[in-house]
Amino acid sequence: MNSIIHQLAATIADRKLADTKQSYTASLLARGPEACVKKFGEEAFEFAIAAIQEDDRHTIAEAADVIYHLLVALEASGISLQEVEAELARRTGQSGIEEKASRKG
Amino acid sequence: MNSIIHQLAATIADRKLADTKQSYTASLLARGPEACVKKFGEEAFEFAIAAIQEDDRHTIAEAADVIYHLLVALEASGISLQEVEAELARRTGQSGIEEKASRKG
Amino acid sequence: MNSIIHQLAATIADRKLADTKQSYTASLLARGPEACVKKFGEEAFEFAIAAIQEDDRHTIAEAADVIYHLLVALEASGISLQEVEAELARRTGQSGIEEKASRKG
Amino acid sequence: MNSIIHQLAATIADRKLADTKQSYTASLLARGPEACVKKFGEEAFEFAIAAIQEDDRHTIAEAADVIYHLLVALEASGISLQEVEAELARRTGQSGIEEKASRKG
Repeated sequence: MNSIIHQLAATIADRKLADTKQSYTASLLARGPEACVKKFGEEAFEFAIAAIQEDDRHTIAEAADVIYHLLVALEASGISLQEVEAELARRTGQSGIEEKASRKG
Repeated sequence: MNSIIHQLAATIADRKLADTKQSYTASLLARGPEACVKKFGEEAFEFAIAAIQEDDRHTIAEAADVIYHLLVALEASGISLQEVEAELARRTGQSGIEEKASRKG
Repeated sequence: MNSIIHQLAATIADRKLADTKQSYTASLLARGPEACVKKFGEEAFEFAIAAIQEDDRHTIAEAADVIYHLLVALEASGISLQEVEAELARRTGQSGIEEKASRKG
Repeated sequence: MNSIIHQLAATIADRKLADTKQSYTASLLARGPEACVKKFGEEAFEFAIAAIQEDDRHTIAEAADVIYHLLVALEASGISLQEVEAELARRTGQSGIEEKASRKG
């Protein structure tokens, strides 16, 4: 359960009170949820472009950025990774993620 | 290490050969990387909107969708979650995710 | 001044009260600003993908979709094309669009 | 026909050969189509956020940015505003923009 994604979420939460001059995460969080969400949006766009270009090395790097900035946006919004995982587990356990996703369209 | 996100990635990889009429994931993957990337883009947008509206329940659900569709887009592109995790670990180990992120801007 | 973009904005405003079963624009507007903004976001993403793929015919079609859905999102938000043009004119007239854009980063 | 949007498109085309240190447009175009498309994507995201927040002044400013960066991305891709307008006119004339849009989904 202690995957790199969990470690990263914990590190981001730790950085909240760090010096914004020393920590990029701290400086992002200090700018508030809206700025964090915008940064996430930029990274989502860049991931899409890299994937469309079939540039694997770049796609991997951008996927890492998407995960990092998703975690930062969640932290800025006061939502934990655990809450998102519980939602994923609920979908999988209850009726299958697929069924849920398909109902959603 | 066997977190819900890993389980989900494994399930998505399994669905690749499933009946597209039975499985939403199979039908998405069958439409190819471009369609999967577009769906990811839509979900990224919806996450952003929910977060801006400070609708926590909705934000959690959309974050779950972002993760699911990121994993589908990666699978469609022939990239594994492990490769993305290796990139995250490399950044953390080498010089700190923050330093890397900050170099990037 | 009566360009196709102005005609389109006028047509969209007209459709507000049209039958949602007969008019796609009416059905979009009836779903409210949030739904219109999401649709705009999808089209922006699709334009980006087409442009990255250097598929000119597709890029032109997606740019047309972006303009149409931007106008729908503005109408849904109670903002007129004229207000946006006034902003563009203000930037151009005052100090040059470029200078303004550059100050913004 | 000589609307502010047309003037802006003409100005952007003119800037292609301008000094990149003096002109923001020139510096954007010099970075190539991919960079211009990314910038458009950022602005599309920011427009969406402003519209969701129902911040009219900000929404107007972001809509102006979307139009400007759409025109820059088109110029970078070698596509003229006239080609996009012809597509809009074709849809309107032939069978109505709405019908076309509705066929598209």
